[in-house]
Amino acid sequence: MQRMRIKEVLASETPLGEVRIQGWIRTRRDSKTFSFLEINDGSCLGCLQAVYDATLPGYAENLSLLLTGTSVEVTGEIVRSQGKGQTREMQVRGLQVIGAAPETYPLQKKRHTREFLREIAHLRPRTNLFGAVFRIRSRLSYAIHRFFQERGFVHVHTPIITASDCEGAGEMFRVTTLEGAGFAAPGAESRDFFGKRAFLTVSGQLEGETFACAFSDIYTFGPTFRAENSNTARHAAEFWMIEPEMAFCDLTGDMEIAETLIQELIRDALEHCAEDLAFCGEFVDPGLLDRLRLIAEQPFARISYTDAVGILLGSGKTFEYPVVWGHHLQTEHERYLSEEHAKGPVTIFDYPAAIKPFYMRQNEDGRTVAAMDLLVPGIGEIIGGSQREERLDRLTAAMQAHGLSENDYWWYLDLRRYGTVAHAGFGLGFERLVMLVTGVENIRDVIPFPRTPRNADF
Amino acid sequence: MQRMRIKEVLASETPLGEVRIQGWIRTRRDSKTFSFLEINDGSCLGCLQAVYDATLPGYAENLSLLLTGTSVEVTGEIVRSQGKGQTREMQVRGLQVIGAAPETYPLQKKRHTREFLREIAHLRPRTNLFGAVFRIRSRLSYAIHRFFQERGFVHVHTPIITASDCEGAGEMFRVTTLEGAGFAAPGAESRDFFGKRAFLTVSGQLEGETFACAFSDIYTFGPTFRAENSNTARHAAEFWMIEPEMAFCDLTGDMEIAETLIQELIRDALEHCAEDLAFCGEFVDPGLLDRLRLIAEQPFARISYTDAVGILLGSGKTFEYPVVWGHHLQTEHERYLSEEHAKGPVTIFDYPAAIKPFYMRQNEDGRTVAAMDLLVPGIGEIIGGSQREERLDRLTAAMQAHGLSENDYWWYLDLRRYGTVAHAGFGLGFERLVMLVTGVENIRDVIPFPRTPRNADF
Repeated sequence: MQRMRIKEVLASETPLGEVRIQGWIRTRRDSKTFSFLEINDGSCLGCLQAVYDATLPGYAENLSLLLTGTSVEVTGEIVRSQGKGQTREMQVRGLQVIGAAPETYPLQKKRHTREFLREIAHLRPRTNLFGAVFRIRSRLSYAIHRFFQERGFVHVHTPIITASDCEGAGEMFRVTTLEGAGFAAPGAESRDFFGKRAFLTVSGQLEGETFACAFSDIYTFGPTFRAENSNTARHAAEFWMIEPEMAFCDLTGDMEIAETLIQELIRDALEHCAEDLAFCGEFVDPGLLDRLRLIAEQPFARISYTDAVGILLGSGKTFEYPVVWGHHLQTEHERYLSEEHAKGPVTIFDYPAAIKPFYMRQNEDGRTVAAMDLLVPGIGEIIGGSQREERLDRLTAAMQAHGLSENDYWWYLDLRRYGTVAHAGFGLGFERLVMLVTGVENIRDVIPFPRTPRNADF
Repeated sequence: MQRMRIKEVLASETPLGEVRIQGWIRTRRDSKTFSFLEINDGSCLGCLQAVYDATLPGYAENLSLLLTGTSVEVTGEIVRSQGKGQTREMQVRGLQVIGAAPETYPLQKKRHTREFLREIAHLRPRTNLFGAVFRIRSRLSYAIHRFFQERGFVHVHTPIITASDCEGAGEMFRVTTLEGAGFAAPGAESRDFFGKRAFLTVSGQLEGETFACAFSDIYTFGPTFRAENSNTARHAAEFWMIEPEMAFCDLTGDMEIAETLIQELIRDALEHCAEDLAFCGEFVDPGLLDRLRLIAEQPFARISYTDAVGILLGSGKTFEYPVVWGHHLQTEHERYLSEEHAKGPVTIFDYPAAIKPFYMRQNEDGRTVAAMDLLVPGIGEIIGGSQREERLDRLTAAMQAHGLSENDYWWYLDLRRYGTVAHAGFGLGFERLVMLVTGVENIRDVIPFPRTPRNADF
């Protein structure tokens, strides 16, 4: 008899007869004549209740092993359940213990702190919460590919190891095969694996632009890295980013795609992750589902940076960081604009040139660039993007102003020498998206094995 | 008027009327009264022929700019083509030069060597060959996600930076934020970003197993790294790997999924990349399409390692490397088994324990493990996998024999302590798959920006 997934068992509309399932015991409850086993196989949040008759052969021997965490194979008939909380259950005909879990198994049925669960990140996906989070994460990843592939975008695997620094800023990890004193010896860099200094990428954008100038529409979806020593709930040293890049596209088109993407992803999750989202709404964040529906349905506001500064100054609120035209918007400002002013997602555009990277397109006002950030309630910035400077003379001038060498970017400048086109793109932080959709507040709890300062366990 | 992609223009079955396209000029050919522009926008291999009437206003001014590589926006009526090689063409009504390409543009219409094109990896996607290769690569990536997602597998992003070495072997890149002499100073490792030595992953398998023991079926799809100083056509320092892992699955189930995956991916490419594959069949490898159809349709052979050694010894062939039971199969052996013996893909299973990693499940014969390699014609090994050792005592004994410390793998051993289950998985090298499907022989030509010894350009 072929194994059936518990998700299919629970979802089946037709009588199933006898089936075979395999999974792990979440809990056991005994009456005089039966044991009730809640069995989960990870295919969905829900467990199948297996009713194990004490008169079955082997019952007595099995009972001491049927503890939380034990893996079992069970066959039996699926019947309508008499109990509450489930619509069907299994009447066990045969049960085989595969692997026992002792009473020292750390995931006994009780509340565990998130901090404790991070220490057993190899076991936490077996809990309801992390099962839900990582199923949602998987679905979102797929929904992103579907979104772009169905629109004809070419998926590009931009390099992880790079000798260039896209932002001209970010703190980067060095990648090396040098050892010991050889690392700092004279001429060491030329003896290193790549014959020069190499780093982990902070963005695939520049390489992505080269492909957009061939395929029109492309996207990347890969890991990116920041060697920042910041221990916040929103920063990790290793995280995944989606970076679409569109040729023949300006800032308005860029904002449209960003907004459509966020809305489509949330609609997809609401449709395909209903059970897991309901769990998050019950146990993580009571306002979650309302917020997601709002984002999915309501048109996003768009406010220029200059107007946003005016709104903040006129808000009557006291902020920790002063609101000054030409300064970065802080998270408190972003959250005010999204949560209190727009009461929903808002895209801020046309930022001061001086606080943005060299590659953003200069506006005609001479002081702003065609940049945009998409802010969402509860998170703040989830997308940052821009139209790129496609005019060679403006771009080289901006590079000079940023102290960058044209020689290091010869290939990037080539895109402006040979058939240059208006183009635009953005970066979506994948973990921030997962946080938005699940309501989970710490980035460490939406990454299977998070990497943060002083932590690369597992 | 909304921009239309050339792929849609060429594929449309119904009259389109006037449309607007944007793209790059591939070639121009002039008659007395017309210029014929071949325009490509990367949405497909094919170009749209735009017939530009010399009597149109602006024709004379534009003509000097309408060179190979120039970007243009063109509007006009789509009509049935009189010429050969295309079924429809555009009668230009309006043409605007967006960005000119000078005559020094490196991609003039002539044959370029692959080596030269690698030096301009930022421009080569604008050629027919690399356009086809990277569109196929993108489609294969999507087909992989579809394959697993439709079967209920959870996509897991296993960590890129790791403090453990999965294979207990592979040469790894070190990741560090230490600088200069501080790198080798006493206590340096504890001052490094993660508080200990950290590396780039060679495989997500061990972390993947932890998730399979929660979700039953999972897969990874991420970059992996080898710091091997090997300059072959099949090795890169950075490449992408797909690693499914299935709980409640033995070696036979593992082989079935591996074989089904390869066949489904090739069928998907034959269906969705027909034009690009036809190009590869014409210009890269004349036997390509026949080989792909054979793989897609013919059941795969399965031969035990021991039988394979017998076949090689009895083949009458002289091999460079001797055939000895207990030695690795070399590429020449693998290709003989696949190309000459099985005349198609073949899965070799039950390899000698001594040449395989510690985590593979020991067979009852005491000398082999439940390992499998899937070999394909023209490439050799494309998939390597195994059933994992789920028995705690056997696994710790194997670790001891391999000189590994139990302390380093406490979390991996926990999977065997708490509800252990039979499980199996494999790794599919994504670039080798792209090589198989496109017929391209050098791995440098299927990666957007390849990383190899002494090369991290772009």
